[in-house]
Amino acid sequence: MSIRTDLAIESAELYWETAETQDIPGVSCEEDGDEEIRITRVEVLNEEGEKIIGKKPGRYVTIEMPSLLESESSVQQKASRFLSQELSGMMESTKLTLVAGLGNSEITPDSLGPKVIPRLVVTRHLLSHLPQTVEHLAPVCALAPGVLGITGIETGEIIKGVAERVKPDLVIVVDALASRKTERVSTTIQIADTGISPGSGVGNKRKTINAETVGVPVIAIGVPMVVDAATIANDTIDLVIDTLSRNSQGEFFDMLQNIDREEKHALIRESLPKEMSDMMVTPKDIDALSEKIAHVVANGINLALHKGISEEEIASFVS
Amino acid sequence: MSIRTDLAIESAELYWETAETQDIPGVSCEEDGDEEIRITRVEVLNEEGEKIIGKKPGRYVTIEMPSLLESESSVQQKASRFLSQELSGMMESTKLTLVAGLGNSEITPDSLGPKVIPRLVVTRHLLSHLPQTVEHLAPVCALAPGVLGITGIETGEIIKGVAERVKPDLVIVVDALASRKTERVSTTIQIADTGISPGSGVGNKRKTINAETVGVPVIAIGVPMVVDAATIANDTIDLVIDTLSRNSQGEFFDMLQNIDREEKHALIRESLPKEMSDMMVTPKDIDALSEKIAHVVANGINLALHKGISEEEIASFVS
Amino acid sequence: MSIRTDLAIESAELYWETAETQDIPGVSCEEDGDEEIRITRVEVLNEEGEKIIGKKPGRYVTIEMPSLLESESSVQQKASRFLSQELSGMMESTKLTLVAGLGNSEITPDSLGPKVIPRLVVTRHLLSHLPQTVEHLAPVCALAPGVLGITGIETGEIIKGVAERVKPDLVIVVDALASRKTERVSTTIQIADTGISPGSGVGNKRKTINAETVGVPVIAIGVPMVVDAATIANDTIDLVIDTLSRNSQGEFFDMLQNIDREEKHALIRESLPKEMSDMMVTPKDIDALSEKIAHVVANGINLALHKGISEEEIASFVS
Amino acid sequence: MSIRTDLAIESAELYWETAETQDIPGVSCEEDGDEEIRITRVEVLNEEGEKIIGKKPGRYVTIEMPSLLESESSVQQKASRFLSQELSGMMESTKLTLVAGLGNSEITPDSLGPKVIPRLVVTRHLLSHLPQTVEHLAPVCALAPGVLGITGIETGEIIKGVAERVKPDLVIVVDALASRKTERVSTTIQIADTGISPGSGVGNKRKTINAETVGVPVIAIGVPMVVDAATIANDTIDLVIDTLSRNSQGEFFDMLQNIDREEKHALIRESLPKEMSDMMVTPKDIDALSEKIAHVVANGINLALHKGISEEEIASFVS
Repeated sequence: MSIRTDLAIESAELYWETAETQDIPGVSCEEDGDEEIRITRVEVLNEEGEKIIGKKPGRYVTIEMPSLLESESSVQQKASRFLSQELSGMMESTKLTLVAGLGNSEITPDSLGPKVIPRLVVTRHLLSHLPQTVEHLAPVCALAPGVLGITGIETGEIIKGVAERVKPDLVIVVDALASRKTERVSTTIQIADTGISPGSGVGNKRKTINAETVGVPVIAIGVPMVVDAATIANDTIDLVIDTLSRNSQGEFFDMLQNIDREEKHALIRESLPKEMSDMMVTPKDIDALSEKIAHVVANGINLALHKGISEEEIASFVS
Repeated sequence: MSIRTDLAIESAELYWETAETQDIPGVSCEEDGDEEIRITRVEVLNEEGEKIIGKKPGRYVTIEMPSLLESESSVQQKASRFLSQELSGMMESTKLTLVAGLGNSEITPDSLGPKVIPRLVVTRHLLSHLPQTVEHLAPVCALAPGVLGITGIETGEIIKGVAERVKPDLVIVVDALASRKTERVSTTIQIADTGISPGSGVGNKRKTINAETVGVPVIAIGVPMVVDAATIANDTIDLVIDTLSRNSQGEFFDMLQNIDREEKHALIRESLPKEMSDMMVTPKDIDALSEKIAHVVANGINLALHKGISEEEIASFVS
Repeated sequence: MSIRTDLAIESAELYWETAETQDIPGVSCEEDGDEEIRITRVEVLNEEGEKIIGKKPGRYVTIEMPSLLESESSVQQKASRFLSQELSGMMESTKLTLVAGLGNSEITPDSLGPKVIPRLVVTRHLLSHLPQTVEHLAPVCALAPGVLGITGIETGEIIKGVAERVKPDLVIVVDALASRKTERVSTTIQIADTGISPGSGVGNKRKTINAETVGVPVIAIGVPMVVDAATIANDTIDLVIDTLSRNSQGEFFDMLQNIDREEKHALIRESLPKEMSDMMVTPKDIDALSEKIAHVVANGINLALHKGISEEEIASFVS
Repeated sequence: MSIRTDLAIESAELYWETAETQDIPGVSCEEDGDEEIRITRVEVLNEEGEKIIGKKPGRYVTIEMPSLLESESSVQQKASRFLSQELSGMMESTKLTLVAGLGNSEITPDSLGPKVIPRLVVTRHLLSHLPQTVEHLAPVCALAPGVLGITGIETGEIIKGVAERVKPDLVIVVDALASRKTERVSTTIQIADTGISPGSGVGNKRKTINAETVGVPVIAIGVPMVVDAATIANDTIDLVIDTLSRNSQGEFFDMLQNIDREEKHALIRESLPKEMSDMMVTPKDIDALSEKIAHVVANGINLALHKGISEEEIASFVS
């Protein structure tokens, strides 16, 4: 797969583009939601599915909320609740949860993780000192480990080191992702029970953080914040070819349309000047969008971890 | 010209791509600089030149410093000095200068202008109260007027309103621009004595700010901070076609190479999905780069306005 | 009055401390509100009142909401609504309003004004281009003029210059203030129809911005964000003396308690080392508090200017 | 000791205020430096010294540079070099150093630690992948662990957890401190080989981070960024009493001057309203100051760890 996507649903969509059927061998898909928010639950069932989808066996839920961009707080609240429900569906009952916010707070499209952390209702330190203030809350701790380029330490190593001391029985990692589609940027949340490779959104992939490497179950929550330049170029070429084909006949355009897709993608990657690999494609109002989506994700996690706490109460905990 | 560029030098380069000669009718070009920093002085001499280049008659100087990205402070200092010299070459002796930093401080690639303002040695308010502290300095005032979407007021109107009160005899505007080439982002400075249309870098073009609209000479200093998505797509397609052509023969690739450029650009613009117009392509480390280039530009302006002040002294004025 | 306060209510409280009656000659006072939010309307009626209170004749409304600090969004919403009502009570019907956010965005306790501006529903620029999107909204424009130390231009000059071009019939200025009491910091809003002297909160007082200097009515909205160090010192000494007096008898403590207040204040001011004048006393969580209060103030202004728009709609306008 | 200070030199000064000799039992003091920068090396030699000074046995070096505030970059460079020398004097040769930047990046006076981390030349991750780029550099990694209130995990636990995985043989911790004197804020650096209690500058003291708790030597670098309100009040009262005493005679003022200092401090602490404990006293330009001092500290560490690297080279590593 030459085009980068971190979303299982986009891998499925790529399959559907050329397949004659909606059924993907080794993969189950289920849709849910309402007119504002669409939920898709993709499960990779076995190695056959993994091979096709390019994702490890496990559950991948996407919550898509196109109108989140228009900033209605009712949509944001609903999105938090849907996230909470889907997250709860993946969690078993836990004693202590560690939430890790991955990414670089100084690079806006990579700052989702660090922005979520201070919005969480964190309680672990209050359990011994002020137990009465948190008796209706679950034990939660959090960490923004930073990025390899700044720390010199793999994010997974930091999480493992801290996890070995605080002994959580669940780790939730939050990170920015890369999408194939501009319209998904900051409007889609993916929840996966297979862990994550940090730095997918911006920069190179790093060592995977999952149950195997950390030692306890890992749930990953990711939001696409960038589209990479090669994807933009590729998609545009596809659109150009489509437009040309629709408007014309003849041998040339037949040929054009029949260019092998794989080959074309490879060609584009090769042709891109090296400066391009340091560029990211991101919405103009990414600063505001990242604040908004961080709020949605943090509240979703708060609601899932602290059962029976209202959104009003969450606000009073998180200054 | 369907592809957007704010740089006169890029307009010239586009001409040279297809022309058989380096001479552009109605335009003079001159190169200067050293192995680290290249200076190009383009002058649009008349309407013929304007028609070809797409820029108003006047002087356009570009200072290109590719290694600025590698952060050597000696290159930054040299860039500030070159900017100071070129700026001085365009300025007549002035009594009071107003520097306006255009753009949106909340959108990093559009924040150059607002970032330059607090780094200027501003003296106008000290002339009456503490004249002895600024007797060797020129009268300077500054303003970050904000953007139309936030203020509801055209940037040019704010500048004109303030200029009518403080009565400068020169206005310098600083703004982020859009380039056609990713390698120019945050490494090229353009100085023009023809004014500016704010919002070129990010967002829609606005009313021009120039000597005619403001009432006193206007010098514009611009730095490309983004490349637009259509440019990226277009350039990639060109590169793909080139690669294909080099590696193959036959009727198809001949045709491919002979697609009319203008037509192709138009096609790409039409094919781009509407979400794309809200996307920008920008370097991953834009936050750090915008700090660095703001420093270079502010120091260049400080050195040009306050003759005989050292860079060390500037640092002591600007906390 | 040696102790600095920008709040009319604190001037009144200082009077009451020593007076034998609640009646202040030339001043009327009225209380309103509920158990969460206290509203006090002070009106300085004439020169006698001005002399006692140290404030120009006019209306000064304070909205105090101590529990705002605990971050319940219902209190914030109520505060916005109360602010909207009080503001409406001072405004006559207007055609175009200009809101100016005073202060320095780079100094957190002085950043309230600049933080309010991007949260306003600004419409002036849409009236000609997209009138259908704003037909139910009032014409509003906004400006963050910056501070004298950065611009070299008095804030009042910038506002006057812009006002002469856009011709508003009302100017609302928003600024950070200084309070005498730490518990008022970021929990109290003052609305005054007498204008404002920018820089009260942090730094030196500047030229007044009011109907006389700007040419149209000026309503000032201010929120205390700092307490100055001399006030802290003075209040502590008072508290120490009180504690001593309560716990002991004898000639010494009688004397202590009878030290003339005016004299003591003067003494404290003289004794303070000069470095102290560059210090500010501010809450530890000032960054978060200033965000919260900016939100409350912006929404209050939005509701007052755009009658018949819901808070949900406001959120959808302000990205 | 009721008045809070994190600086050993201030503890010594408090002793000298009442003692008749400069010699402190169990403590050695040594002065060094030049007219711009003063270096004081305090060594607590034994338990007797610890009892008097209130600091664990070990070395405490302070670098004071009052003119750093005036922003001359030559003073900043010299300060970095002095810090490098003093730091080198405390370090034994190390294989891998872990630098931990303590504090809360969202609270400016507490953000020194997190601000230093991205300015370090971090190499650990390059040693295996790109050894040739870092062969002249020492192995360094870094971490900004966050604060207990946000993470729910003691900072010391996070450092210990990470240290157990990456196995450094030296840990350097950087943190903001509280000073007794406003003139020391952001102009004094303390280096200590006895570790640190995070949160001294802002908030409550936490578990100590030192060789004993982490398992390898710990050097602490601290810079005062706040003065607490009780200190301000206390100092002002002392100044008032001094002024009164100088200007008058009589029984009353004799008594005043003879108030027991310890008792007075206790009284002030009791009298302070509880809101005061959430206030901090900090310079108005703390945002700019914290940037500047972070730069000085980061460069000092870079020079100490990477012998034979120039400041120019450091700049090229740290974007």
